[in-house]
Amino acid sequence: MITEQQKKLMREAIALSSRNIDNGGGPFGAVIVKDGKILARGANRVTADNDPTAHAEVNAIREAARILGTFDLSGCEIYTSCEPCPMCLSAIYWARIDHIYYANTQYDAKAIDFDDSFIYEELSLPKQQRSIPAERMLGEEAIEAFDKWRNKEDKVEY
Amino acid sequence: MITEQQKKLMREAIALSSRNIDNGGGPFGAVIVKDGKILARGANRVTADNDPTAHAEVNAIREAARILGTFDLSGCEIYTSCEPCPMCLSAIYWARIDHIYYANTQYDAKAIDFDDSFIYEELSLPKQQRSIPAERMLGEEAIEAFDKWRNKEDKVEY
Repeated sequence: MITEQQKKLMREAIALSSRNIDNGGGPFGAVIVKDGKILARGANRVTADNDPTAHAEVNAIREAARILGTFDLSGCEIYTSCEPCPMCLSAIYWARIDHIYYANTQYDAKAIDFDDSFIYEELSLPKQQRSIPAERMLGEEAIEAFDKWRNKEDKVEY
Repeated sequence: MITEQQKKLMREAIALSSRNIDNGGGPFGAVIVKDGKILARGANRVTADNDPTAHAEVNAIREAARILGTFDLSGCEIYTSCEPCPMCLSAIYWARIDHIYYANTQYDAKAIDFDDSFIYEELSLPKQQRSIPAERMLGEEAIEAFDKWRNKEDKVEY
């Protein structure tokens, strides 16, 4: 059951997606909501900022975390004008956001040549079948930093 | 066939992962390489910077894109001290990086309580079965921004 208040929040994300087109960005907007109020906004600035990670959701998450002074956005919800791509969905998991509301789908995005669904398919393949090759090397040297981490007493875990 | 030069590049990523622990960050480092030379470096600054997206690979990608002045890192390779999590792997796809080299695995990361593998599992589930609920709403309003994008003539596509 979607409330009028939730519609208002999504309409803000949609308005951001539309305004961002006029502003040299891609057609994506997102807001992070806490206690029913908008805490942070984001829009897709990949081409405008030359940052391949500057999707609407990532930008909104970074802003919300900056405002709250924590990397843990438990208790927050995200309203995004389009279903999150795998990068943004993973960022939502890392940020521990409680709930996702989205409007356009990954298939709508594909229809305007933003191919999130390609990356979803790639991630579901075994590593050896993905289009970007990934090779393992020097595991026996890298593990030392993990041992060092394990033995550190005053670390900040997350 | 891994060359001595490639080992040097990975050892730089590993050194970053270890130094970052002393520097208040997590045990992860990455370098972006172009034409055999290190272009950008990144380390995990999630807790240090209160940014849930500040993984080593994301930070290195953002820095490389800033330096090159483009969102397209075709022709670049990434050497990362640990297998990329789904957020970072997706960022690598969006950035069009050619090749991934990694040292520790997602299972090594899980063993020190960085549970990338949980997010990999979540992404492979149908949306309705994932632990963070996702609900669609107002698709009929959001699609207007996509139509506006489709009809824009001077857009920068990627």
